[in-house]
Amino acid sequence: IFGSILGVSAGFVLGKEGPMVHTGACIANLLGQGGSRKYHLTCNWLRYFKNDRDRRDLITCGCAAGVAAAFRAPVGGVLFALEEAASWWRSALLWRAFFTTAVVAVVLRTLIEFCRSGKCGLFGQGGLIMFDLSSTVATYSSPDLLAIILLGIIGGIFGGLFNFLLDKILRIYSIINERGAPSKILLTIIVSVITSMCSYGLPWLASCTQCPEDAVEQCPTVGRSGNYKNFQCPPGYYNGMASLFFNTNDDAIRNLFSTGTATEYHMSSLFIFFVAIYCLGLVTYGIAVPSGLFIPVILAGATYGRIVGTLLGSISSLDPGLFALLGAASFLGGTMRMTVSVCVILLELTNDLQMLPLVMLVLLISKTIADSFNKGVYDQIVVMKGLPYMEAHAEPYMRHLVAGDVVTGPLITFSGVEKVGDIVTALRITGHNGFPVVDEPPLTEVPELVGLVIRSHLLVLLKGKMFMKEPVKMSGSFVMERFGAFDFAKAGSGKGLKIEDLHFTDEEMQMYVDLHAIANTSPYTVVETMSLAKAALLFRELGLRHLLVVPKTPYRPPIVGILTRHDFVAEHIHDLFPSLNPHNFHSASMGG
Amino acid sequence: IFGSILGVSAGFVLGKEGPMVHTGACIANLLGQGGSRKYHLTCNWLRYFKNDRDRRDLITCGCAAGVAAAFRAPVGGVLFALEEAASWWRSALLWRAFFTTAVVAVVLRTLIEFCRSGKCGLFGQGGLIMFDLSSTVATYSSPDLLAIILLGIIGGIFGGLFNFLLDKILRIYSIINERGAPSKILLTIIVSVITSMCSYGLPWLASCTQCPEDAVEQCPTVGRSGNYKNFQCPPGYYNGMASLFFNTNDDAIRNLFSTGTATEYHMSSLFIFFVAIYCLGLVTYGIAVPSGLFIPVILAGATYGRIVGTLLGSISSLDPGLFALLGAASFLGGTMRMTVSVCVILLELTNDLQMLPLVMLVLLISKTIADSFNKGVYDQIVVMKGLPYMEAHAEPYMRHLVAGDVVTGPLITFSGVEKVGDIVTALRITGHNGFPVVDEPPLTEVPELVGLVIRSHLLVLLKGKMFMKEPVKMSGSFVMERFGAFDFAKAGSGKGLKIEDLHFTDEEMQMYVDLHAIANTSPYTVVETMSLAKAALLFRELGLRHLLVVPKTPYRPPIVGILTRHDFVAEHIHDLFPSLNPHNFHSASMGG
Repeated sequence: IFGSILGVSAGFVLGKEGPMVHTGACIANLLGQGGSRKYHLTCNWLRYFKNDRDRRDLITCGCAAGVAAAFRAPVGGVLFALEEAASWWRSALLWRAFFTTAVVAVVLRTLIEFCRSGKCGLFGQGGLIMFDLSSTVATYSSPDLLAIILLGIIGGIFGGLFNFLLDKILRIYSIINERGAPSKILLTIIVSVITSMCSYGLPWLASCTQCPEDAVEQCPTVGRSGNYKNFQCPPGYYNGMASLFFNTNDDAIRNLFSTGTATEYHMSSLFIFFVAIYCLGLVTYGIAVPSGLFIPVILAGATYGRIVGTLLGSISSLDPGLFALLGAASFLGGTMRMTVSVCVILLELTNDLQMLPLVMLVLLISKTIADSFNKGVYDQIVVMKGLPYMEAHAEPYMRHLVAGDVVTGPLITFSGVEKVGDIVTALRITGHNGFPVVDEPPLTEVPELVGLVIRSHLLVLLKGKMFMKEPVKMSGSFVMERFGAFDFAKAGSGKGLKIEDLHFTDEEMQMYVDLHAIANTSPYTVVETMSLAKAALLFRELGLRHLLVVPKTPYRPPIVGILTRHDFVAEHIHDLFPSLNPHNFHSASMGG
Repeated sequence: IFGSILGVSAGFVLGKEGPMVHTGACIANLLGQGGSRKYHLTCNWLRYFKNDRDRRDLITCGCAAGVAAAFRAPVGGVLFALEEAASWWRSALLWRAFFTTAVVAVVLRTLIEFCRSGKCGLFGQGGLIMFDLSSTVATYSSPDLLAIILLGIIGGIFGGLFNFLLDKILRIYSIINERGAPSKILLTIIVSVITSMCSYGLPWLASCTQCPEDAVEQCPTVGRSGNYKNFQCPPGYYNGMASLFFNTNDDAIRNLFSTGTATEYHMSSLFIFFVAIYCLGLVTYGIAVPSGLFIPVILAGATYGRIVGTLLGSISSLDPGLFALLGAASFLGGTMRMTVSVCVILLELTNDLQMLPLVMLVLLISKTIADSFNKGVYDQIVVMKGLPYMEAHAEPYMRHLVAGDVVTGPLITFSGVEKVGDIVTALRITGHNGFPVVDEPPLTEVPELVGLVIRSHLLVLLKGKMFMKEPVKMSGSFVMERFGAFDFAKAGSGKGLKIEDLHFTDEEMQMYVDLHAIANTSPYTVVETMSLAKAALLFRELGLRHLLVVPKTPYRPPIVGILTRHDFVAEHIHDLFPSLNPHNFHSASMGG
């Protein structure tokens, strides 16, 4: 139910896809944190979202709302969020995302209806379908299919190359951006100067073309948005390249997709525009402006498709406009590596259901080709940012390791009733978020695993200063009387308690605190001999943060270690076992 | 890659949705079993699918291919399979399902192109989009929205009622069908006689209508498929009800969806048709003929929508044809309870992207309304068939129980080196599929959990008759020399070894067999104090068949019990704890 508000908020803000998705996710995260305390935007009932799972769901919904609003593609938004943003899939999540985008769709439709008369600038333009192609009826034969397969293969190669170059460029940018705000601004200025130079300089290279006599639009257009830019040409003539460069991106895509306009652009114009847009798309992403990847990739892909369509005009009877659509699909498949969602987004953008089989075919081919070179662009960025990204599936080399192999670092455990000083020290010297609690004799006969406590709960307990002089067990209800359930609720990022904020006297440091009441007494555990692949599956499918590793035989100590997301990352495993090259393992397991 | 063959096979067979999906899933299952040995359709490399996970994936893909072929809706097929058929979601599965339906789409497109000239009967008709509505441009205002919300609410109620009645009728049918083939055939004959009587008898009630002067089609049509059936009317007149009854269902739906034909059907004709189709849809599903639910529900929903549209014609300016589409959406939402996939399937059926926001809205409303009455129709059928259906999410009352509570029955464990007679007896007297293996002294110092063996592996081991006179541990490699890896591969359903097929001498029964080599030494385990909800989540998300429950403290015995799918079913839990009413628990946990 709550998603609707989110949907409405996202529906009101409209822009390009990158910032849109980000905005949606940010609003969702903000709501998930119970509003912003800094700006006094708190809301009491928002605290129900103060847990990890609901917050993750909310961010997924925000992402869906963002895509739905940016591309006016509600179903595509749901699928994008599920395919790319959601770590794992629940039917409730599907339903929530669908609810969100349904609200976005209705709000969007109402706003477009309201703005149709031109009250809101360019917003109402295009209606719910941005690049309507529905009027064209396409029939295709075997040579067309061959041409399309070729288009898909080359598109996949270009997509993979795009990802490769983008990765290199982003690595350079991150070095530049780390130097502080002045470098960031300088970089942005340089890129925008280059963009302007290309946009203004390159059309000079193109020659003037005579206006078609049966043009529906006014030709040439001067001083307003539209096709057939005059740009230094005599009256009655237009500059094809300027028509692409001096337009909004949306209009340029619409021009490229348009059918029945095979002769509108010179081959040379298209080629120069393709190179320019491909390179500009690469250098623009990652600078300190809100920009997306979808629109540049679609633009480059559409140009590429139109070039191929014009070149293969002799063997294929398909319109270059439809080739442009398929080219855009091949680039999207080659960079994003999403299939179902790209397919639906393109369908919702163009309303051309007849082309669906061809779009699916092209996506298949380009994704397969590009997958043999490198990873999808979003996965690359996550890896580059150094986030511990877990693969959706367990890597083959993980089958050769067991859970006990990758447990690292000194394990810090607490007793069920632990000295305050020890806890404070442990929290200060480590950044660990979870600590196993083990009852030792004399509390129990043998060492016994109580459960897992997490850092934030420890901090709340310490802040309450419910300490004891002697190490004895308290009753659980006593702790619960002192604290409300919401005291332990998850705080927003950067807003929780910090160990540095808490101060204790020497006397307090010598006292004891009972951890039984706040320990999760039944954490998920695996035995140390379990294959790492199985442990990774458990970790990933349940969306865990900590996974306790227990010994195979019930000897002391009752715990071997604790696995976190970092332990499943390929680099970490490679550091531990330098001899194990993941690639070697891959081929070995394939062969064996 | 393999899915393509599947897709092609499914693409060639075309029919109604029920049998289509079934056909797709059956082909997939057959392939998953490595072909049918009975019909000598085995294939050596199909044995790579002899494991549960790949087989489940293959069935999901088959399901997607079936829907894709039946509705000519490839993306809808992927989503249907994921939303309804797949137990859990993996990105690889998404990619495979997409690949399958892409192949289906291309094959389908080629066949339709080939059959367009009428070579294959009615098959080529309609093209890739079965009920094309794209020509209508809809604008709607606030009164329209109110009318649509009303439509959604009533549609949800009808959908819920449909499920309720279908459940009752299917229960009666299952009693009848259990009596054997003659009863089955009699039931089928009775239903088909009723259907014929309705189809032929009811049109007599309708009066004749004059043909519209601007009719595009020939009016009335006699002796061929089409609109405006003559049926006992004088020339120049047609019988509206006969036009609905004496058509193929596809044509009837197309007629109902058609716009600009507000006066084509009398209100009374529509009403009688609605009642008849609603009831016939209920009594037809479940008899011994291959039939689906989608088309009857769409037909009833479209009629209902047209009735509402005609009734509300005074306050809403939307065309009754669009109301028919929304009515179909509301019925689908109310019975199937799927959102995204129904939305995409309807979109792909009608090619009417402009209506998407309204379709989403109607689906939201009808699903929400119907969910408050009962479950989705497929869930109901699974429950009725007595299959241990696990809810996608853990029920709230499960939070009040722990895993140890629901473990039932005498636990049968084997020693690491067990007497053949004991294993044979255990396999004969129980139907259990998994048995924990525990090493007892003197093999080890303390009782120690080795792992889990499953029935089929035990049977293979017993068949090999690698028995020993004395209970000593063998080396694992020795076992592996005797058996190939594929000996333990999962056999097709009903094709594996059975304990009744194995015979042992008395001497062999007194011998020992080493189970260490075939035991899964790191099964997933939970401690007995883990909340049942957490255990259910683990069981469900990982798609487990057995879950070992181990004691909290490492005392002997090292295992408490074993959880299977049956233990998580509400009825089982209710039997164990009669005082716990799931509904009470639900409200209690909501309040608390």
